[in-house]
Amino acid sequence: MSKHQVVFQPVGAKIEVEKESSILEAAAEAGIYINSLCGGEGVCGKCRVQITRGGAKPTSHSMRFLSREEINSGFVLACQTEIKDDLEVWVPPEARLEEEQILTTESMVCYDQPQDLQVSDTLDISSLLYLPVTKKLYLSLPEPSLSDNISDLDRIYREIRKKIQAPYLEASLSTLRGLAELLRDNKWQATATLHPHDEHCVEILSLEPGDTCAENYGIACDIGTTTIVAQLVDLRSGATLGVEASHNQQAKYGEDVISRMIFACGRGGLSPIHHAVIDSVNTLIDTLLEEHGVEASNVTALTVAGNTTMTHLFMGLEPCTIRLEPYIPTANFLPSTSAAELDLHLHPKAVVGCMPGVSSYVGGDITAGALASGISNSPQVSALIDIGTNGEIVMGNDEWLVCCSASAGPAFEGSGTKCGMRATKGAIQKVRIEEDQVDYQTIGAAKVRGICGSGLIDVIAELYRNRIIDPNGKFPKNSVNPRVRENEGEMEFVLASGDETETGKSVVVTESDISNLIKSKGAILAAMRLLLGSVGMSFLDLERIFVAGGFGNYLDVEKAIFIGLLPDVPPERVQFIGNSSLTGSRMALLSRHALERANTLARQMTYFELSVDPKFYDEFVAALFLPHTDMDMFPSVKKVMGS
Amino acid sequence: MSKHQVVFQPVGAKIEVEKESSILEAAAEAGIYINSLCGGEGVCGKCRVQITRGGAKPTSHSMRFLSREEINSGFVLACQTEIKDDLEVWVPPEARLEEEQILTTESMVCYDQPQDLQVSDTLDISSLLYLPVTKKLYLSLPEPSLSDNISDLDRIYREIRKKIQAPYLEASLSTLRGLAELLRDNKWQATATLHPHDEHCVEILSLEPGDTCAENYGIACDIGTTTIVAQLVDLRSGATLGVEASHNQQAKYGEDVISRMIFACGRGGLSPIHHAVIDSVNTLIDTLLEEHGVEASNVTALTVAGNTTMTHLFMGLEPCTIRLEPYIPTANFLPSTSAAELDLHLHPKAVVGCMPGVSSYVGGDITAGALASGISNSPQVSALIDIGTNGEIVMGNDEWLVCCSASAGPAFEGSGTKCGMRATKGAIQKVRIEEDQVDYQTIGAAKVRGICGSGLIDVIAELYRNRIIDPNGKFPKNSVNPRVRENEGEMEFVLASGDETETGKSVVVTESDISNLIKSKGAILAAMRLLLGSVGMSFLDLERIFVAGGFGNYLDVEKAIFIGLLPDVPPERVQFIGNSSLTGSRMALLSRHALERANTLARQMTYFELSVDPKFYDEFVAALFLPHTDMDMFPSVKKVMGS
Repeated sequence: MSKHQVVFQPVGAKIEVEKESSILEAAAEAGIYINSLCGGEGVCGKCRVQITRGGAKPTSHSMRFLSREEINSGFVLACQTEIKDDLEVWVPPEARLEEEQILTTESMVCYDQPQDLQVSDTLDISSLLYLPVTKKLYLSLPEPSLSDNISDLDRIYREIRKKIQAPYLEASLSTLRGLAELLRDNKWQATATLHPHDEHCVEILSLEPGDTCAENYGIACDIGTTTIVAQLVDLRSGATLGVEASHNQQAKYGEDVISRMIFACGRGGLSPIHHAVIDSVNTLIDTLLEEHGVEASNVTALTVAGNTTMTHLFMGLEPCTIRLEPYIPTANFLPSTSAAELDLHLHPKAVVGCMPGVSSYVGGDITAGALASGISNSPQVSALIDIGTNGEIVMGNDEWLVCCSASAGPAFEGSGTKCGMRATKGAIQKVRIEEDQVDYQTIGAAKVRGICGSGLIDVIAELYRNRIIDPNGKFPKNSVNPRVRENEGEMEFVLASGDETETGKSVVVTESDISNLIKSKGAILAAMRLLLGSVGMSFLDLERIFVAGGFGNYLDVEKAIFIGLLPDVPPERVQFIGNSSLTGSRMALLSRHALERANTLARQMTYFELSVDPKFYDEFVAALFLPHTDMDMFPSVKKVMGS
Repeated sequence: MSKHQVVFQPVGAKIEVEKESSILEAAAEAGIYINSLCGGEGVCGKCRVQITRGGAKPTSHSMRFLSREEINSGFVLACQTEIKDDLEVWVPPEARLEEEQILTTESMVCYDQPQDLQVSDTLDISSLLYLPVTKKLYLSLPEPSLSDNISDLDRIYREIRKKIQAPYLEASLSTLRGLAELLRDNKWQATATLHPHDEHCVEILSLEPGDTCAENYGIACDIGTTTIVAQLVDLRSGATLGVEASHNQQAKYGEDVISRMIFACGRGGLSPIHHAVIDSVNTLIDTLLEEHGVEASNVTALTVAGNTTMTHLFMGLEPCTIRLEPYIPTANFLPSTSAAELDLHLHPKAVVGCMPGVSSYVGGDITAGALASGISNSPQVSALIDIGTNGEIVMGNDEWLVCCSASAGPAFEGSGTKCGMRATKGAIQKVRIEEDQVDYQTIGAAKVRGICGSGLIDVIAELYRNRIIDPNGKFPKNSVNPRVRENEGEMEFVLASGDETETGKSVVVTESDISNLIKSKGAILAAMRLLLGSVGMSFLDLERIFVAGGFGNYLDVEKAIFIGLLPDVPPERVQFIGNSSLTGSRMALLSRHALERANTLARQMTYFELSVDPKFYDEFVAALFLPHTDMDMFPSVKKVMGS
C-alpha cells in the first residue's frame, strides 16, 4: 500500500499515512488536535483546514460548511478529506486545540478557584472518620519461634489487629509470593498497605520491606470531557501537594460526549478512546510525580470523578447504550480495580475507583459535587447546578434529593456560536454596554479572538437591559444602535470591530447565537422548575444555590439572573464552588466514609429523565424568554425592565 | 556454549543439553523420571544409571553408593554426573519411575477404595447447606425502558436478589466489559456464575449469554507428594463423574517433600517445581474433560487438598521456611485465586482454593481428612491417622481437637528398605509365615519385584509371631530357620528366592529393614500416646480410629496392632477411609459450609510440635519394641506371645 507524507503547519509536524486516512486521522496521529465537535462525522464544520501543497478537494457534502472563497483558497473539512497525495496542511488557530489553551485551561480550572475544601460552609471534614482509600501500617513483627509458630500471614494479621479493628483481613495470592524471604531478609520489619474494602473487610494490597509509611500518596482526578485535572495528595496528612491539568486527549476523536460515544461505538472502537484518556491521566501523573519527587510505587490510590460516559471510557466499558433511549449505563457503581489493570503509572496494586453515578446523564462528577457541596448534610433546601453542555442539577437536603440533566447544548462552552470559543486566552469574558459603548475584558487581557460562554451571558444581559434586543432575543426591526447590523441575512451586534481582534475580523453576536443561548438557559431553568415542582416548591424555597464547574467562576450572578439562567433569588444565596467534582473525588480518596456517603447520595437521588417528560417541555417553552414568559417569577428584573 | 546429545535407553529419548547439566537434569528435560529420593543432593544413591557410550566418571563422593563392579560397568549417580560428552545412558528399571507404575498407582488410590462419601458413618452430607463454590443462575431480565432505567449491573443484581439472599453482590471490572452488548445481543437472557465469598458477599464471576446452567462442573483434587488424584464433579447434582490419577511430575525434582523443598529453595528454584505440579493437574483436567465431553469453560471451581508443602508449591509460594526450625509456612489459610493466575485449563475465572492447613506439617490434606471423617461431628473421641512418610494424627471430638505430625520416615512407602518398593505391580503386599513356609501375595499377582509397606508390616508381624525375630526386631544368634541367613555382615530373612523374582535376585527383609520399620511405627504410636496424654486419655478411650491414605486399604489391622503400629483396641474400631483428603476436598467444593467447617477445624486444632517435645522422645524410645516396651499396653499380643 502506498504511503503519503503529510506536513501540518504552522507546527511542521510530519507524518506518513496510508492513503485511505482522513486528514483528521493523520493529524491525530501526528499529535495535532483539530477541533472536531461532531467526532469526525462531517456535521459540525469545525475542522476546516487549508491545503497549501498537494491535491485534495472538499467533498460535495462538506461544501455547505465552506464559503466559495475558502474553497478557492484550498480549504477542506479535515474529517471528510481522504489523503491521496503528499500534502502540506495549514491548521488555522480556530481549528487547533492548542498547547497554550491547555495551559490556560489548567490555570483556570485549578489555580483561580477557591480552596476546594472551603467551597461549602456546610462541609465538615472533621466529622468524617479519617481513613483514606489506602493506609500504610508499619509492622515490627516478633520473630517466630517454636512456641510462637503461627504462619507468616497470621503473624502479620495479628500485628495489624493490634492497630486496626477489622473482622476480616485478606491478602491476595500475589501479595504472599516472596513474603517469607521478604520478612526474613528485613528482620521482620515490613510495611503493609491496607485498603479498607467495606465495614467488614480490610485487604492487604502489598507488603514492602522496612518502614515506608512516610510515603503514601493518592491521586484525585476529575475527568472532564474537555479537561482532566489531577491532584497529588499526601494520604497521611491529607495535604494536596500539587495539581496538574491537561486537555483530554480523547478530543481528537470528538469534542463532546455524544461524538465520543459515536466514535467508540462505531468505526473507531473503544480501544483508542479508552487509551487516550488513560494516556492523558498518565501524563498528568508522570508530571505530578516528577515535580514532587514522588515514586510511582508510593502512589497507592486513584479516585476518579467524571460523567457517566467519561467513567465508562476510563474503565474500558462500552458507552454505547448511554446514548440511546432508554439511556442505560453498564453500571453506575463501578467496581474498583487495580492500576495494573488500567496500565496507570502508579503502584500496580493501587486501588482505582470511580465516584458512583446516578444515571447515564447524572454521573460521578455530580455525585462528587453533591458530596463536596455538603447538600445532604443540612436541612436547608439547596441546589447544585453544573452548567455545561449538559446542565446537571441536584436539589434537596438531608432528607431527600432529586436530580436531572438538561441538554443545554454547547452554547455555554462557546460552541454553536458564530464567534464562540472556549474560555481561553483572547476570549471576551465580561461585557458592559451602555447604548453603543461597549467595554469588555478578555482572558489574559489578550487581543480579542472570540467570545466565551460567560461573555455571551454578559452580552445578552446587557443587550436586554439596554433594550437593544427584545425579551425574545430579537433585534427590533427599527434598531438604531450603530453596532446592530444585518449580515448575510441575519441581524447581529458588533462587539469588537476588526481592528480590535487578532484575526482582523469583527467579533459579533448574532440573533441565532442569542437564540441558542436562550434555549440553553431555558433548558436549565425549566429543569430547575421541574425538580422544584416535583417536591411542591418554588425558587424562593432554594436557600442555597451552588454553581459548579470552571465556567461558574466567571459567571456574573446578577446577569445570569437577569437573563433567567439562574432563578431570581437574593444573589448572596448563590455560591461558586469551582471544580466540586475534583473536591469530591479528593474527599473520597481521603476518607472511606466520604466515599460511602457519596454511595448513599447516589442511591438516594431520585432521577428525572427530562427527555420524555411532557411537563419539562412546557416549562422549557415558557423559559424561552428573557428572563421568562412569566415576568412575575423574576421580580428583580421586572423592577428594572418594567413588566 | 557447546552442546551435547544424550540418549536415554531403553526408551531411546534424545535430548541436547548444555554441558554443565547433570544427567538427572537432562533426563527430566527428556521426560524420563529418574528416582531421586534426595532431590539430587547425592545422598540417597537411588539414581544409579549406566553410561553405555561416551565418557563420564563417578565423582569420588558418589562412589560410596556404587560397588566396584558397578563402577567398572560404567555406573554413576545421575544427579552427581555432569555431561561433558555425547552420552548414551541406560536407566535400569529400579531407577525409573515408570508409566506402568503411574497407572497402577491410579487404580490403587482411586478405584479400589470405598465410595468416598460413605467412608464415615458419621458424615451427614444432608446436614450441610448445599451451596457449592460456584453456582450458575439463569437470568431472564426484563428489557429496560424509560420507566425501568436502572443500569445493566443493577438489573442483574435485582434479578439475582430475587433468587439468592446476599447483603452484598459484586462483580469485577472485567466481568462488566462487553456486558451491554452481551445482554442486548441475547435478548436479555444470561447466566451468571456466582461465587459466595463469605456470609456477606456473593461475587459474580462471569456472565454468559443464554442459559448455560445445565453445565457447571468442578474439580476436586488431592495433591499428594507422589500421586495426584482429580475428580470431575457435577456441581449441580453433586455427582462425581470421573476420576483420574497420575504421578506428581515434581518427582523428577525429588521424591519426598524435603528433597523438593531443597530443590525449590536451592539450585532449582520455585518455578520448575511449581510448574511441574500445575502440569500434572492440567494433564488430569484435560483427560477428565475429554473423557466426559466437558468444555473447560464450564469448569468453574477447583479445590485442592495437599500437605503444606504441596499446597505452597501448587500456589507458587516458596516452601523454604517450612523445612527449617521453627517450621513456619507462609500461610495456612491460602487466599483463593483464579484458574488464569495459575494457568489451569479451566474457565479463566474459575475459583481455585486450597483446603486450610494447621501448621507446616499438618496440612490441608489432614484438615480435609478430618472434615471427611466427621471426627468433629460426634462426642465420641476418635483418631484420624494418615500413615506415610509423615504420619499425621488428629484426635478429638465435637469439643476439642489435637494434632501432630510424626516423622515416620519412608519405610511405610517401601523406601529405606533393601528390597522395598512402592505399592505397585509385583510388590509383595500380604504375607503369611509358618516356620519356614512363606505364602505371599503380590500386587497384580505379578512376579515378585520387591516388598511394599503393607507387606513389610505383615512380614514383621509374622516373623515376630513365629518368634523368628525378638521383640526388639533382631534375629536370635542361634536361629535355625533355613530362611534366616547372614549376608554382607547382616542377618536377613529370605522372603522369595531368586527363581521367584523378576530380577532373579532374592527378595529379603534385613535386620536394618525391621529396625527402620520399628522406628516408623514407634514414631506413630508415640505420637498417639503423646496426644492422648495431653488430654489425660489412654488408647482404650479411642472409640474410633480412622486410617486414611492409599496405604491404609492394604493394611491388615490385626497385624498392625500386633507389631504396635496401631494401639490394641478392638479391631472393629479401626476403619479405613481411603483417600479422605480427596473426599474432604470434594465436600468443600460442593458446599461452602463444608469449607467453613474445615476452616473452623483448622483453627480449632491444637498443634503439638513433636520434634522439640522431650515427652515425645521418651514415648518414642519406649515404642521401639514389638509391640511396645510395656507389654501390658497390648493385652491381645501378650495373650498370644506371653509376657
